[in-house]
Amino acid sequence: MSDAERNDGPGLLLTPGPLTTSERTRNAMTRDWGSRDSDFIGLTARVRHRLTALANAESDYTCVLLQGSGTFVVEAMIASLVPPDGKMLVAVNGAYGQRIATIGKRLGRNLRVVDSPEDEPSDVAALRAALATYGPFSHIVAVHCETTSGVLNPLTEIAEAAREHGAALLVDMMSAFGAIPIDTPGLGITALAASANKCLEGVPGMGFLVAETSQVAAAKGNAESLSLDIYDQWQNFENNGQWRFTPPTHVMAALDAALDQLAEEGGVARRGARYAENCRRLVAGMRRLGFETLLDDANQAPIIITFRMPDWPGFTFGRFYDALHERGFVIYPGKITAMETFRIGCIGALTPADMDAAVEAVAAVLKEMGILDP
Amino acid sequence: MSDAERNDGPGLLLTPGPLTTSERTRNAMTRDWGSRDSDFIGLTARVRHRLTALANAESDYTCVLLQGSGTFVVEAMIASLVPPDGKMLVAVNGAYGQRIATIGKRLGRNLRVVDSPEDEPSDVAALRAALATYGPFSHIVAVHCETTSGVLNPLTEIAEAAREHGAALLVDMMSAFGAIPIDTPGLGITALAASANKCLEGVPGMGFLVAETSQVAAAKGNAESLSLDIYDQWQNFENNGQWRFTPPTHVMAALDAALDQLAEEGGVARRGARYAENCRRLVAGMRRLGFETLLDDANQAPIIITFRMPDWPGFTFGRFYDALHERGFVIYPGKITAMETFRIGCIGALTPADMDAAVEAVAAVLKEMGILDP
Repeated sequence: MSDAERNDGPGLLLTPGPLTTSERTRNAMTRDWGSRDSDFIGLTARVRHRLTALANAESDYTCVLLQGSGTFVVEAMIASLVPPDGKMLVAVNGAYGQRIATIGKRLGRNLRVVDSPEDEPSDVAALRAALATYGPFSHIVAVHCETTSGVLNPLTEIAEAAREHGAALLVDMMSAFGAIPIDTPGLGITALAASANKCLEGVPGMGFLVAETSQVAAAKGNAESLSLDIYDQWQNFENNGQWRFTPPTHVMAALDAALDQLAEEGGVARRGARYAENCRRLVAGMRRLGFETLLDDANQAPIIITFRMPDWPGFTFGRFYDALHERGFVIYPGKITAMETFRIGCIGALTPADMDAAVEAVAAVLKEMGILDP
Repeated sequence: MSDAERNDGPGLLLTPGPLTTSERTRNAMTRDWGSRDSDFIGLTARVRHRLTALANAESDYTCVLLQGSGTFVVEAMIASLVPPDGKMLVAVNGAYGQRIATIGKRLGRNLRVVDSPEDEPSDVAALRAALATYGPFSHIVAVHCETTSGVLNPLTEIAEAAREHGAALLVDMMSAFGAIPIDTPGLGITALAASANKCLEGVPGMGFLVAETSQVAAAKGNAESLSLDIYDQWQNFENNGQWRFTPPTHVMAALDAALDQLAEEGGVARRGARYAENCRRLVAGMRRLGFETLLDDANQAPIIITFRMPDWPGFTFGRFYDALHERGFVIYPGKITAMETFRIGCIGALTPADMDAAVEAVAAVLKEMGILDP
């Protein structure tokens, strides 16, 4: 029986997050912290240091923690690091890339979008063509794993194009950070945005940037928003080790405990290997039952898997979802626009055995729905 | 022994928040939630309903929850409810009123400030004079309890002036909501902003507005920020009961549990009475030891008390703070600009007996510092 089942919770969350966390991570929230007390200042410093280390970016980079969801961090990154006279090229192949473009437009930033299909990786040739035709661009903004479909985008190639063009590269690494090793300085990434409650297996309520210190230091006055100003937030951390505004103390304690467990598991590559095995078991099992994945295996990140909605007589998603829920498995609706799909995540405090159990539950539900041999 | 002491935490937080919560509230965080699952949609609806009820604003008002700290909510309120062509009059008598002015200026809103001294309530005559001289204003923005000093501002009189002027009234009720009964529609308040981790005794990570539904519905397109757009956030709650972006699920569960305990305590007036008794015991005890409060008792909100820094030989704040910390009491630095002070809070899961114990600890520390008869 897993941690989550022992608890009086929903069972296993097979979602892109918030996801299933360990009992140890949740129990880290059962004490209070004074937000300006030395204990919490120490916790904040430790978490900042560990996050830059996970990005392999300990020198020349800094970590800026921020309250809120992942979108708050992505908006803070755009608002603070792209100056008002900058020009962004945004690689879009799903809802999260689209959201970056929406944020940029709302903030009045000059930007251009390069669209790729939702079920394919970002088209680097198209990106290069846009750079050549519509440049110069000060910033390229990309999504590492696009959670809309679960596709892994070609970050190395995008980074190469950015370097050749002389543009700064900002990356939404929300659903990949902590599971896919990243050489942040090697790729020349200016900033990456991620959150506590994805592959780091913390709980939701905060995110962070790992960003070049020089670029953060140069960001003074860029953001109109006070709350989302990364320069101001960083200055405060540097000046007295404290958060500017009330931090989510319990969420921070959970993240610190989750980072202990990531280290004990063996680090990012080992966690990524567990997720890859989760993904392999899930996809193989679902295919045996007749389901089809949206993506080619080569483009699939081991994070969340999109399945085409079957057209089997008697199959309805509502009934399928509810029956799995009753059995203790929470799956996720689809998000791509072109066709009906649903998603099953394989990140969080989940093991390959949990994925086998999920596939067994799917088989039982199909049987219950009268779909014996699709 | 209190909940907090049984726990392996810092002892008692005598601060303006994050503050000491009950074990029951913290334990509510030991399960996971699917953020788009029906259980969490139910939790979200329940919390929204209970918060409007606490504001006595069940009809014609709506509750919009928001990720982040209280400042995020205040900024979202200004950005969303004051249109770009609006004009704000901001009543300032401390850092939080000043922060509202800073936010308004950064967002490019037309505004004027009426300053009152930090150790006095906002001057309503000066406010009325500014309305008459520099009006018309579309919005008046005020702070109910200014945590900088702990002063309670004359909300009824400010509301009267707003009504007479025909201006909408926006109130930062961060540190008062849940402890001071408020007749939101009776005062004609357009919106109030508060957070989970003050007098509601939840944990930090989210806040909320209670606002006139008609004004929220009219706020489309006002906010430049995507993350802090109250109209968009509200639309999503109304459309499918879900948060737009990943909610702090565990923080929400803690707030729900905290609201149960507020109801069991007997509601806002009873909680306010407990805090008032906490405040009375603390002030009486500290005066017996020779400390002086900054404020006249008539202007003191039962939330946090500012004490003048004594000039007794041998007294240093650093040593005083550390020695109290060792004894399990976390106090708070001062924030007013005119003189040296420190603060002791009386909100949170604290009883009058806890305040007596705090005073005893202060006496013991003074003795240890060689200050026997100040």
